[in-house]
Parts: sequence; structure tokens; C-alpha cells
Amino acid sequence: MPTRFASGAAVLKPRTAVQTLPDYHPPLGGRIGLRCDFNENTIGCSPRVLAKLRSLSPEDLARYPEREPVEGAVAEHFQLQPSELLLTNGVDDAIHLLCETFLEPDHQVLIPAPTFAMYEIFAAATGASVVSISTDAEFSFPLERLLLQLTARTRLIAIANPNNPTGAVAAPEELLAIAEAAPHAALLVDEAYYDFYGSTLFHAWNDYPNLFVARTFSKAYGLAGLRAGILTGAPEALASVRRVASPYSVNSVALACLPEAVADRFFVENYASEICAQRERLQMQLATWGVRFWPSQANFVLFEVGEKHARFVDAMRARGILVRDRSRDPGCGGCVRVTLGLRPQTDLLLAAMTEVFAELQLISRERAQ
Amino acid sequence: MPTRFASGAAVLKPRTAVQTLPDYHPPLGGRIGLRCDFNENTIGCSPRVLAKLRSLSPEDLARYPEREPVEGAVAEHFQLQPSELLLTNGVDDAIHLLCETFLEPDHQVLIPAPTFAMYEIFAAATGASVVSISTDAEFSFPLERLLLQLTARTRLIAIANPNNPTGAVAAPEELLAIAEAAPHAALLVDEAYYDFYGSTLFHAWNDYPNLFVARTFSKAYGLAGLRAGILTGAPEALASVRRVASPYSVNSVALACLPEAVADRFFVENYASEICAQRERLQMQLATWGVRFWPSQANFVLFEVGEKHARFVDAMRARGILVRDRSRDPGCGGCVRVTLGLRPQTDLLLAAMTEVFAELQLISRERAQ
Repeated sequence: MPTRFASGAAVLKPRTAVQTLPDYHPPLGGRIGLRCDFNENTIGCSPRVLAKLRSLSPEDLARYPEREPVEGAVAEHFQLQPSELLLTNGVDDAIHLLCETFLEPDHQVLIPAPTFAMYEIFAAATGASVVSISTDAEFSFPLERLLLQLTARTRLIAIANPNNPTGAVAAPEELLAIAEAAPHAALLVDEAYYDFYGSTLFHAWNDYPNLFVARTFSKAYGLAGLRAGILTGAPEALASVRRVASPYSVNSVALACLPEAVADRFFVENYASEICAQRERLQMQLATWGVRFWPSQANFVLFEVGEKHARFVDAMRARGILVRDRSRDPGCGGCVRVTLGLRPQTDLLLAAMTEVFAELQLISRERAQ
Repeated sequence: MPTRFASGAAVLKPRTAVQTLPDYHPPLGGRIGLRCDFNENTIGCSPRVLAKLRSLSPEDLARYPEREPVEGAVAEHFQLQPSELLLTNGVDDAIHLLCETFLEPDHQVLIPAPTFAMYEIFAAATGASVVSISTDAEFSFPLERLLLQLTARTRLIAIANPNNPTGAVAAPEELLAIAEAAPHAALLVDEAYYDFYGSTLFHAWNDYPNLFVARTFSKAYGLAGLRAGILTGAPEALASVRRVASPYSVNSVALACLPEAVADRFFVENYASEICAQRERLQMQLATWGVRFWPSQANFVLFEVGEKHARFVDAMRARGILVRDRSRDPGCGGCVRVTLGLRPQTDLLLAAMTEVFAELQLISRERAQ
């Protein structure tokens, strides 16, 4: 037996990038009530999905998942070639894979702020430098500032469109200007909230081979628990990402259910249409109350409560409605984000908000009538 | 609008490590027949798991998964602290996370060969150098050769125990000698086939804080489709891995079903015990036939068919039995791996093997009687 190789003092250490990685602990515990906190579908998934789930056999669970046939079916639904689509373990996995495919420690990543936290976390984990591009008070898309930060080391630009938690959007021509200006960088446009917005960059990768577009089944489709996202792009660029993808990353239940989920167009379109109507209703009410809010193209609205944001969230929870304090996000001091539900759920939401705003003396009792 | 930043010639390129990454395309398509090819549970999962799956509501699918409470329940079952256990999206995810946590491009990874392909793929994806440690013709554990390859740059050593595709094992003291000799490297002991073997290094991380032990629900538990693995280790080391883990990497169906799966001990113990009995039966038959095989401590047996390995696999498939050609694995020329099933399934397996061995004139017709 060789003698001990290393000195007794040697210990296992994580990479420096891991040691300094920001923590992300979503406030999941004890989510009892109307779920207006995570931008999920508030009524669940299509009955067709549930029927499929319940038809699964022990054998279906025992077999390793086969992703490719389902990728073909999902691609067909979205009128894409199978080579233009990769199914992922939620969009988190898609972001992770993009970072792993393209980022080295000497690279730079541009991310507008505020936005979805996972872009920064997965990018920073590679050791690359993350440059946060601040927006103005209206959260309008910071195109000029972003283009000014582009360098030869820029290798990823991640943009949620519509953005979360603001609900703001970038115009297609703004996004394509970035793809054009940075052909050496991957441009990820995360269309997680597409169904509540309607504008997409699908197919634009034919002109911009560095463009990737992500979609999720966690929002309008009501399948956050199943973990299914899609990453789309030009076949050649996507082939590189596919190399680092784990063959069994998407579970068999998701794979069995996705064809049902995309086939039930009525469920998703009807839900999204109703959510958009309720979004207008909430925004009109906020305007009536004189509460500052940001017009949203997603299934949530961000508004400014002010110093009493934490008390607002607690008081809503006490009334059985979960909403999300976003006051720690850059530029979001005092802000709360509320996910929309269907009409009866919005009735409950507005009734509770009316009480809480009055209780906290944020609007006058007269206005709250 | 700023002018185009980069020259027209600039294009997006994946990292060098990704460009040279080995492909892994498991032969999944058209798996019709008795599944003796992927070391899955051949009868499916516990009825308690299926009942739980069928009780899930649309709301359960629509909510983001909550991993922590289930980690607590699974840790308790294995008599571990929650801080000693991380649930992962299959063991693939555990391997991926370990590589991401510890490996830099100037590091070195030691992997005995032949073994499970994903260690090399995830390690190589980081840009680290992978050193393959060859075994002898008996596939005995290459402890001396491995220790001789240790350097200050070694940061990960990945060992499947029992090993796949050989079924061979390393003794606990051999594994701990590695942990002792390389305190600056993570030692992953992948106990995917633990239930068919019975020896574990659980808790040894109290003395060797660089030791990680993985387990899976894809084999004995019959849940390969759900994607659930566990990574265990000393709380401090595991905390680093937890930092890079995606908060929603394990889906809600798996999380709902795991407490049922671990609670039904009878199902797993009974299945494993029956598989071990059938393993002895197959090994005795191979010995009787004079077919070279390697004694296995897992739910499969590797044996040498010789030049006709591909014809053997095809002829078995024609008889409705899927087996796996492993002849491309290092040291496994002409070898086939067969997963064991229950007694009636082994009856079918042996009957088909008898016919095929005779048909291919690998054993005499008399011996095949």
C-alpha cells in the first residue's frame, strides 16, 4: 500500500465560484391558501394531463425515460423541427445547460436587473463575471446600456421577456439588435410567460444562430411540479447544448403528460385569456386606488406598497392569499408581486387587498369602498 | 444604436471541453420485451407508489416541488441527518453536481474502467482531465494502480460499487484507503446496486469528510422513470454541493412517491432477495455451460459470448428478451450483460439463452439440453 499521498492538512475545497455563489431559497414552506406567489397556474393542469398521469403503470415508472419521441411530438406542436428543440428539466435546466455549454471563467454575462434569479446563479457558478444592467424606474428595457456593456468576452445575455418580476417587455427588434450586435454570445430569450403575452422570437434563429428561446410548462400549462421546459434554437447551436444534456434529465411522467398538455390547446388558451382579463381588472383597481404599479404582459402584476410591504404580505396571508414580497429585488423597494387567477379568485384577491390596504392605511377607507 | 460590436466573422462557439465531449446515446428505442438491458426492476414499482401517484391532484402538479420536507423523510428512513442527504434528479444529477462543485479545468479525475459512462462525461464536461484506471482480466478492483495515479491535482475519484457492467466490488477498506490517501479529492462511491449487495459506506464520512455515497431509486425500487437519486456525505461537504443544486431539480411526483417507496421495505427487500437467488441460478447455469462470466454482486451478470455478441443480442431480442451488448466497454470484448428478473422471468431468460447459445453453436446441443 503506498503511503498517504497528500499532507494531513490537505482538505477538499469547492471551486472558488461555488464558495461565493449567491444563495437562492424560494419561500416555499407552508404554502396554504390561494397561490398568488409563484406565478403558477392557480387552478392546476388540464384534465387530460391528469387522466394520462393516472393511466401510468408500474412498468412506466420502472423504465428509464425516453426523451426523443416526445421531443418530436412537442416540436411538431410548436411547428418546429425536432433538431430545433430540447426538452429540459424545467427552464432552470435549460439555463444551466447554456451556461455549461458556453461559459468559461474569463467570460462575461450580461443580465438586466431586476429579473429571474437563476440566470445569475447558474452563470456565476461557472466562474464567469456577471454584469448587471440596471433599468430605469419604469423598468423599460435597457437596450442602450446593455449594448454599451458588450465586449469580446461577453458570451451569454439572458433576458426574460416578459420580464419577471416586472411584467415589462422588450420589443422583438430590441432583442434582435442584441443578437445582431453580439454574434459571439448566446442570447437567451426566456419566454416563460409567452402565453399571457403572445409575441415570440421562435424561428428568428434562422437569421440569428446565436439566439436561444426558452419556454416552460410551469406557468400557463399548470405543470410546475412535473419539471418540463423547452430550449429552442438553431439546430447547430442546440446540438452543442444537447451534448452536455443528461440523457434522462426529464422524467417519464412529464414525458407521458406533455403530448396531452400541448394537445389540449383550449385549456391553455382559455386560461391565458381569462388571466389577461383579470390582469386588466387588477391594474384598473390599482389605478383607481392610486397605487403605483407596472403594466404587465405576464400572469402577475408588480405594485408598490411602500414601507409596509412585509406587513401587507403577512396580512394577505392571514386572509388566505399568498403573495410575494419583491422588495429586495433591484429597483423594487417596497414592491409586492401578485399572480393572477380566474375571476372568482380575483374577487377574493381584490376583496382581501381592499381590506389590507385600508387596514394598513395605504388607501383611505373611502377609496376602499 | 451602437454599431455592430464584433466583426462579422465572430460566431458563437461552445467551450472546448464541450466540443470534444464523448457522446452517450443509450439504446432506448423500441424496448419491447422482457427488460433485461438497463438493470431496471423488471416488475415495476411498489403498489403503494402507484396508489400515491394516482392520488395526485391537478394542484399537486401545478405547484413547484418542495424538496426539503421529503429530504427529511428519506434521511430518516436511512437513519441519516437531513444535512447528510441531498435528493437529486437521478444519480446523474448527483455526479453532475459533484463535478460542478469541485472540478476546474486543471484538475484530474480518476475513474476505474470499465464502469458507468456518466462519470467520464460529466467530469470531461468541466474541462478536467480524466484518467482511466484499467482493471485486470478478472475486473478486480485496481486499488494499487489507482493510488499510484493520485496527484495533487486529483480532485474527484468515481467508483461504482458494485461496479457496472462487471458486478465486481471493492472492499470497504480499499475504498477507505483511497479516501485516506486523497483528502483533497472527492471520493464518490456510487452504491446504485446496494440493495443486491448489502455493504455500504454510509456514515464513514464521519471519519472521511471527502467521501460521498450515492444511491438510486432507479434499480431495486423500480422508479427509473421518476428520476430520484440521493447523494450523501458529511454535512459541510454536502453543503457546498447543495449550493449549486437547482431548487426544483426533483419533480413533485417523485417527491410525493418517495416516502411511500422507502416505507414499503418489504417490496424492495423481497425483490432484491429474489433477484439474488436468480443471479445464483444464472451463474450456475453459465458455469454448467462453460460460458465465462464474472461473479456479480448486482442485479445483472456480465458474460463472454465472443465474436457473435451482436448476433446473440439480436437473437435474444427476436425471442422477446432485451439484453445489453457491452463489447465496446474497455476489457469487455465479446461480452453481454443481462439484468435478472424474478423466477418466471429467469425461466424465460434461460430458455431463450439455451436456444440462442445452441443456435449460434456457442455450446453444444447436448450441453444445451
